Amino acid sequence: MTRRVVVVGGDATGMSAAAGIKRSLGDAVEVVVFERQRWTSYSACGIPYWLAGETDGPDSLVARTPERHRANGLDVRTRTEVIGFDPAARTISTQQETVSYDDLVLATGARPVRLDVPGWDLPGVHGVHTLDDGLAVLETLAGNAQRAVVVGAGYIGVEMAEAMALRGLTVTIVDMADQPMSTLDPDMGALVAQGLTRHGVGVRGGCALRGFRSGAEGGLSAVETSGGVYPADIAIVGLGVRPATELFGALPRGRSGGLLTDDHQRVVGYDNVWAGGDCCEVRDRITGETRHVALGTHANKHGRVIAANIAGDDLIFPGVVGTAVTKAFDVEIGRVGLTGREAAEHGFEVVKATIDSTTRAGYYPGATSITVRMLAQRRTGRVLGCQIVGGPGSAKRIDAAAVAIWHEMTANDVAGLDLGYAPPFSPVWDPVQIAARVLANRLRAVG
Amino acid sequence: MTRRVVVVGGDATGMSAAAGIKRSLGDAVEVVVFERQRWTSYSACGIPYWLAGETDGPDSLVARTPERHRANGLDVRTRTEVIGFDPAARTISTQQETVSYDDLVLATGARPVRLDVPGWDLPGVHGVHTLDDGLAVLETLAGNAQRAVVVGAGYIGVEMAEAMALRGLTVTIVDMADQPMSTLDPDMGALVAQGLTRHGVGVRGGCALRGFRSGAEGGLSAVETSGGVYPADIAIVGLGVRPATELFGALPRGRSGGLLTDDHQRVVGYDNVWAGGDCCEVRDRITGETRHVALGTHANKHGRVIAANIAGDDLIFPGVVGTAVTKAFDVEIGRVGLTGREAAEHGFEVVKATIDSTTRAGYYPGATSITVRMLAQRRTGRVLGCQIVGGPGSAKRIDAAAVAIWHEMTANDVAGLDLGYAPPFSPVWDPVQIAARVLANRLRAVG
Repeated sequence: MTRRVVVVGGDATGMSAAAGIKRSLGDAVEVVVFERQRWTSYSACGIPYWLAGETDGPDSLVARTPERHRANGLDVRTRTEVIGFDPAARTISTQQETVSYDDLVLATGARPVRLDVPGWDLPGVHGVHTLDDGLAVLETLAGNAQRAVVVGAGYIGVEMAEAMALRGLTVTIVDMADQPMSTLDPDMGALVAQGLTRHGVGVRGGCALRGFRSGAEGGLSAVETSGGVYPADIAIVGLGVRPATELFGALPRGRSGGLLTDDHQRVVGYDNVWAGGDCCEVRDRITGETRHVALGTHANKHGRVIAANIAGDDLIFPGVVGTAVTKAFDVEIGRVGLTGREAAEHGFEVVKATIDSTTRAGYYPGATSITVRMLAQRRTGRVLGCQIVGGPGSAKRIDAAAVAIWHEMTANDVAGLDLGYAPPFSPVWDPVQIAARVLANRLRAVG
Repeated sequence: MTRRVVVVGGDATGMSAAAGIKRSLGDAVEVVVFERQRWTSYSACGIPYWLAGETDGPDSLVARTPERHRANGLDVRTRTEVIGFDPAARTISTQQETVSYDDLVLATGARPVRLDVPGWDLPGVHGVHTLDDGLAVLETLAGNAQRAVVVGAGYIGVEMAEAMALRGLTVTIVDMADQPMSTLDPDMGALVAQGLTRHGVGVRGGCALRGFRSGAEGGLSAVETSGGVYPADIAIVGLGVRPATELFGALPRGRSGGLLTDDHQRVVGYDNVWAGGDCCEVRDRITGETRHVALGTHANKHGRVIAANIAGDDLIFPGVVGTAVTKAFDVEIGRVGLTGREAAEHGFEVVKATIDSTTRAGYYPGATSITVRMLAQRRTGRVLGCQIVGGPGSAKRIDAAAVAIWHEMTANDVAGLDLGYAPPFSPVWDPVQIAARVLANRLRAVG
């Protein structure tokens, strides 16, 4: 009998695993993919830019359609929800049938956090997790929405605040925390708030969501929070996501509910069950702990690793250091590693440095300001985190810091790195290295 | 008696060392700086952008004037050429006097390569090494120059070709090699040639410089090369630089003529003589050999290291991996490590991969094409070099590769790195990681 691989979930991890397995094993394997939605291989990260009107959608956000996957020999079953899982029998069940597998790939992704507050299902209240969510947002916008309230000032929230503003809406972004971007230290988040404010977005901290109020015609009229009531024709909710693993309670899961795997993306204790992407936890190389990091780039890498290992190769996913980038208007944001609070929670005593510089040589046209925060462990000088907020050309500078943290470099080591310099790209000391140099000097002083 | 530090050369290394020493040691040290020119602490790298009319100059290219340095307690003597050096007596001589030192910092920089061909001193033939060179170029341009020939298609040549074109001149760039940018593999250099051509610059390879011809009025009329004669009202020569160390023949020098130092920037065998910047060789971390790499960013780091060590601290310069970036028009260039030819010369058997991708998610506005070449050692998979040619947002991606090469990562390691992803900044696989992934697959296939 032909070996059968069943894949649950047809987005980044699932489809890249499925395609990779088929490419390697050809007719020796039957690959069945179950996907709840009608789309496969789409970029959820692109939804804010589509809704902003900056890119087309939804089709252009689909990297590969179900039809194309089928043409490559994959048995892709869209609009098909998996409702049962029996690891002992090695079967997966849908409404229609029960299918046995030799290898199972779990790539069910995550689900947006939903709070138990009134009005969530009102017309005009939206998440932006799927392409269908995006279509629903566009429908509300077509109804002449003028005031948008974005609930949650994380990555999606900040991106959607920009998107709604670019469409001409009056935008308020509310968050429980005092400052946006809780993955940054609060004073770095304040720089993001300043940038949003400069572009006309109202930024309100200390606003815990209480619910959504309806107006005379039954639609949304306002978002109610602990910090005030904000009139709204449309509300975008981005309060984070949780691993979609309810069906897989038999498998080992971490605190977030994410599946726990080994570094080959094999579910711990289950030789023939693999998992990757937003339904998993990943190992943080700095703390050694696993945590939930929902990012398409990890999901794609997981797909590659799973495909290789199922095909008999030997690949590992080496873990993460928490690198992330985004932008809102002309404010770019990059971060990696631990924030000050996270470092303290993990028992690290840290020294930090914050510097202001420019993205290009100061005299070069288009040079904009950039702020870099770097944190290092006091005892060893090892860099534990880096945060960047600045103008165009800022965010991707985080990559150099990410590779440095990956290798447990000290601040002084980072100051000595050989990074690219030319006036259109950097001051003669790259801003990341200015931060490292100041931090190294400070470490010596306190040492 | 107060300890005296004498610094020869008042640009990046010299002034950052001098300023750092004074900051640390205050009145306990007398710091005397000799500088041939009238400027200090200027950005030679900025000259092409000044001449292009993109930035002001020359004053805005001066980070710190002699007056400001003097106000900080440094004894800066500009327009003062050093003509004698006696290491046994520990003295430095100028036309006026002989000064003894306790510590000597050599930061004499480099001099442009000058070939023994006729016409070099004709009006209209220029280097762009100093601010005075820049002023001279502007004087020639003011004389209604319309045709520029740039001799040498390295960093300065490519930047000056852009600069002359931006000023409205008709520009031809000639080089002995077939393709521009000999620090890239030839086929990657060809992409640069295409970019220059697309912007109206004539690119001529196989043109060894034979000399400069004068016209009826005694000025430049043409540049003569082995590949043709090119009419010119102005010629810009950028054939590289050599360490300016003629006066220091008593000290150990490498093949390039650059001074040899230990990792503390102490001249080998001379405890009280320090050297840094373009007059030195630096250690290449990949080959272990020393070579001449004239770059302001290294020069500044050398200044920091020298200052710290003279002040009693213990800092090292850890070497280089050959990172460099530049741009011409909308073509960005980044490179690090060994080219194919350099790898072969050092006995490495390599496998390479070249990929085309986009600088942002393909659907995101402003995504432009980017080509990444990566080379790895066949036996170990260790990445030895990376080259990037692409649109805006391409060049500084080389930094992630540079830190990876610094740590001797394999192609597969690089494919697993945690780099920043969001649609405005990158496809879901960063182009550098796409190259690494393809290269890793190829290494496994040939392994």
